[in-house]
Amino acid sequence: MTQIIHSVSDLQKWSMEQKRQGKTVGLVPTMGFLHEGHLSLIDTAHAQGADAVAVSIFVNPTQFGPNEDFDRYPRDFEHDRILCEQHGADVIFAPEVNDMYPAAVTCWVQEEEISKGLCGKTRPIHFRGVTTVVTKLFNAALPDLAVFGQKDAQQAAIIKRMVRDLNFPIRIIVSPIVREADGLAMSSRNKYLSADERQRALTLSRSLREAKEALENGTRTDALAECDVIRQKLTASGGVVDYVEALDPETMLPVTSGSQRPVLFALACAYGTTRLIDNMKVD
Amino acid sequence: MTQIIHSVSDLQKWSMEQKRQGKTVGLVPTMGFLHEGHLSLIDTAHAQGADAVAVSIFVNPTQFGPNEDFDRYPRDFEHDRILCEQHGADVIFAPEVNDMYPAAVTCWVQEEEISKGLCGKTRPIHFRGVTTVVTKLFNAALPDLAVFGQKDAQQAAIIKRMVRDLNFPIRIIVSPIVREADGLAMSSRNKYLSADERQRALTLSRSLREAKEALENGTRTDALAECDVIRQKLTASGGVVDYVEALDPETMLPVTSGSQRPVLFALACAYGTTRLIDNMKVD
Repeated sequence: MTQIIHSVSDLQKWSMEQKRQGKTVGLVPTMGFLHEGHLSLIDTAHAQGADAVAVSIFVNPTQFGPNEDFDRYPRDFEHDRILCEQHGADVIFAPEVNDMYPAAVTCWVQEEEISKGLCGKTRPIHFRGVTTVVTKLFNAALPDLAVFGQKDAQQAAIIKRMVRDLNFPIRIIVSPIVREADGLAMSSRNKYLSADERQRALTLSRSLREAKEALENGTRTDALAECDVIRQKLTASGGVVDYVEALDPETMLPVTSGSQRPVLFALACAYGTTRLIDNMKVD
Repeated sequence: MTQIIHSVSDLQKWSMEQKRQGKTVGLVPTMGFLHEGHLSLIDTAHAQGADAVAVSIFVNPTQFGPNEDFDRYPRDFEHDRILCEQHGADVIFAPEVNDMYPAAVTCWVQEEEISKGLCGKTRPIHFRGVTTVVTKLFNAALPDLAVFGQKDAQQAAIIKRMVRDLNFPIRIIVSPIVREADGLAMSSRNKYLSADERQRALTLSRSLREAKEALENGTRTDALAECDVIRQKLTASGGVVDYVEALDPETMLPVTSGSQRPVLFALACAYGTTRLIDNMKVD
């Protein structure tokens, strides 16, 4: 039976009790509207040794810009609860906004290198909100390990950097992207897509896969030039490209040489009002 | 016997072991060169219920500006060790700079309201360094309670705000200023003062006490005007005033009305190259 906890102090008590019993606590931070990507994170937490798993479900207002989709972000708590139950989550941490932000925040956690590029350019306050709320979630759940999705590759790299720089005693695990059968990376925001947009959005994963194949089999050799190829395909599919970049997978900073290996291609592209992200690593 | 620990991971292990034994862990963060003010913080940690007390001794480079006294800040580890031993500290956490900062920090903790005024004006990166290193120390010592000195009133208020905003499961205790017999607030930096400067620096505590007496016995009634009186006395004593302010003791923001009560007078003033701070509350 998955227990539902709303307050920070109750979650702290729960976590400390688990530890007193010698259990390893795992945290899976989510914004809810769970899909198979999220569920794989819960499974990963168990597989990586968590005896007690908390899934947080919180649509965090401080990581949404004023013109973003905070209000319309999809929510379905009852469905989420059933899925958490099925995947053996011990606790759902489902705070209200007032539980997490009883007063206006004046103390922020901010990463200032990895967060500058990619999504950080078009979403200037996003990662400050993410690192701050994840710090709050870490201090609430006091986990031994926490699982994040590779779908949000920049976020995962920022969280790892945060844990390194601030000495959180937490092991960060990054779990692979889960895709629909046709290749679309799973995202709660896929729900926004019309049938037509959904079809055109397949260009994200397809263009990434084609770039990966071309570089890995040697048909083409320049990762930087490949970004232009991807960009053209996205534009041709009716997408409005935010960025397509070739990154060092460790530092998440842009590669300087087109022939550098390994490389992570990361992109953001909008169809209609729906902005999607995806990424793929080339070895 | 006080145990000396140098690495973050060893301190985390020590703290988790204390908790497994059901002990309450207390942390006293210091920059070393301990005086009776620091020792009162250790005593307070015990008095407030800490069964296992860690004293951190770390002159934190990230809270010093480029033209400040990081290099000449006084250090005397062996003396500190004896004092910690005498006051029953269980652990001294004495990391090297490389233990705390193995790589350049790109993720900072920054308070953006209380930190703007007072010392934050003349020391723009100071409090960012303080909140970041205290977060690191909290995540290293994992304390149940931590004790700070009221001498650094602005710092104590910022740390309380940080704990509130970031949900650290830590009780923050602020311990009263300890003064020399003649009134000078104890500070490791008092060592910098020449005999003459030391004498003139008594004006800090004397002018604060005179303001407190005048307002409490009704001789004078305007706290804002009292700031000018203090400023004049400091200047007359040969001090170079950085600030003298009347603050709301809760918010640490400047009071808007001269008749507001209670009020905290806080000041910073330099004699020669030595910048000193002091504060006093008027009820």
